[in-house]
Amino acid sequence: MPVTNPERVRIVEVGPRDGLQNESTILPTEVKLGFVGRLIEAGLTDIEVASFVSPRHVPQMGDAAELVGRLPPAPGVTFMALVPNLRGLERAIETGIKRIAIFTAASDTFCTRNIGMSVERSLDVYGEVARTALAAGLSVRAYISTSFVCPFEGDVRKERVREITERLLELGADEIAISDTIGAAGPREVTETVGYCLERVAVERIALHFHDTYGTAPANVLAGLQLGVRRFDASAGGIGGCPFAPGGAGNLATEDLVYLLERMGLATGVSIEKVVAAAQLIAKALGRDLPSRNYRRLTYNTLQPEP
Amino acid sequence: MPVTNPERVRIVEVGPRDGLQNESTILPTEVKLGFVGRLIEAGLTDIEVASFVSPRHVPQMGDAAELVGRLPPAPGVTFMALVPNLRGLERAIETGIKRIAIFTAASDTFCTRNIGMSVERSLDVYGEVARTALAAGLSVRAYISTSFVCPFEGDVRKERVREITERLLELGADEIAISDTIGAAGPREVTETVGYCLERVAVERIALHFHDTYGTAPANVLAGLQLGVRRFDASAGGIGGCPFAPGGAGNLATEDLVYLLERMGLATGVSIEKVVAAAQLIAKALGRDLPSRNYRRLTYNTLQPEP
Repeated sequence: MPVTNPERVRIVEVGPRDGLQNESTILPTEVKLGFVGRLIEAGLTDIEVASFVSPRHVPQMGDAAELVGRLPPAPGVTFMALVPNLRGLERAIETGIKRIAIFTAASDTFCTRNIGMSVERSLDVYGEVARTALAAGLSVRAYISTSFVCPFEGDVRKERVREITERLLELGADEIAISDTIGAAGPREVTETVGYCLERVAVERIALHFHDTYGTAPANVLAGLQLGVRRFDASAGGIGGCPFAPGGAGNLATEDLVYLLERMGLATGVSIEKVVAAAQLIAKALGRDLPSRNYRRLTYNTLQPEP
Repeated sequence: MPVTNPERVRIVEVGPRDGLQNESTILPTEVKLGFVGRLIEAGLTDIEVASFVSPRHVPQMGDAAELVGRLPPAPGVTFMALVPNLRGLERAIETGIKRIAIFTAASDTFCTRNIGMSVERSLDVYGEVARTALAAGLSVRAYISTSFVCPFEGDVRKERVREITERLLELGADEIAISDTIGAAGPREVTETVGYCLERVAVERIALHFHDTYGTAPANVLAGLQLGVRRFDASAGGIGGCPFAPGGAGNLATEDLVYLLERMGLATGVSIEKVVAAAQLIAKALGRDLPSRNYRRLTYNTLQPEP
């Protein structure tokens, strides 16, 4: 049954950043630009393209400034870059990018191991980053890593996630991506933790960021939708898995998210076939297969038609 | 938080039948017996082991009689075999198996192409099969293929699915597996169609059978759970994909289903690690990788530890 005026869901494509930063292969800027170009053609309007972290720590993102400088004109598309500190922010501002993302975690152990400071300290550091960015006319998104499960501390308390969410909003972030960094959460925690946040935070301020390591991401999306959340992160092809797990699960795949949402009568404005075309370009460049279901369905059906 | 007396969900393992019948490689009986043995060790208590279809049509199942004859003693485990007609039933009864499965569809075009008769005619044929089986002391399960989407006719009407469900129960089947044969359904259809069935059918009579072709199976399970369904089909490793789609999606993977359920506080009695061990045996025998998330997570972490 065709739906008239279907409700819209916004997808934030994080493949060029969260996806590629976890791949062992470092792709040329040219290939990344081709990837971003195809994502735009697919209808994606929010794309995280790079990270201004130290190139020594994350060489995959070493070309951030060049990449952002060479992005094609794309009316209606918001490009975003991750920024770890004031120095990264300065580099980002020089490129002319208009939106940055900052990141903390809901677990101190993870936060310390990931960015070398406690959650409390990171909120101080990012407070200054956010103020500076806003003063320069940029907008700010914030990630909360390990919002459900921490690989070191186990289950994360919902009270902690809501507190950090509110603190990040106070710092000036306009969207908080509650993130299942290791992909181990299930729908119950999503309902409980995100539902708890929504008792005090407007649903328009919340995005959900899932990885599909344990196979729960599609069910977690459904749990989020049932709470009214209409913003989800994903990466074309489901890239971003651990480099030592060929075809392993990274972020929830954009094309699988689009299929799920559209099949439920929600509108995304995104073409599955064109996202898969973007994923195919990356699969070729990485020299490996990708975990996304729709990528596999379309790739193998195209290459080897059923007898 | 540990849950005391968690609610139980029953998993019907269909890998040795629905999984292997769709693989281009024909496995030796010895390998299949090893597979079934590992599934039993993993804690699975309901296992569909074979299909008594014509070996000319489905050579993968050509050793059904030998396989069933050589099954290990397994107290508390119910073995089941698919039976397409009276002749298949006779062969099944000779092996001593105690439970059979019959199968029709909710779409006439699919039914005709799959088993050469209309849905109406198939209900006549299976009526006789079911009566004969029950008279011989066997129990009967029934599948309804294409219960949500038909590859030829498109969306399937919920009224048709409920009507066929009721007819199959009248024929003596004690469990109806409402099946998304091509794996294209989303949670909305699950809620609508299964919810509609449950207005007249006891939830204990319903199992849900998902394939993960489009990446919706985990979300469909959640939709089913929310309706009160507590019986789900799955195959170890997610085998059963089209042979021409390497690593492509087949049935929902048993280990991914177990993770999702246990993470929600439901009990399955099944060990993820041991299901993955069963899947690894089959991956090796088929000479290909498998799509399951937990298989990949555990297989690659084991083989190539993180540096």
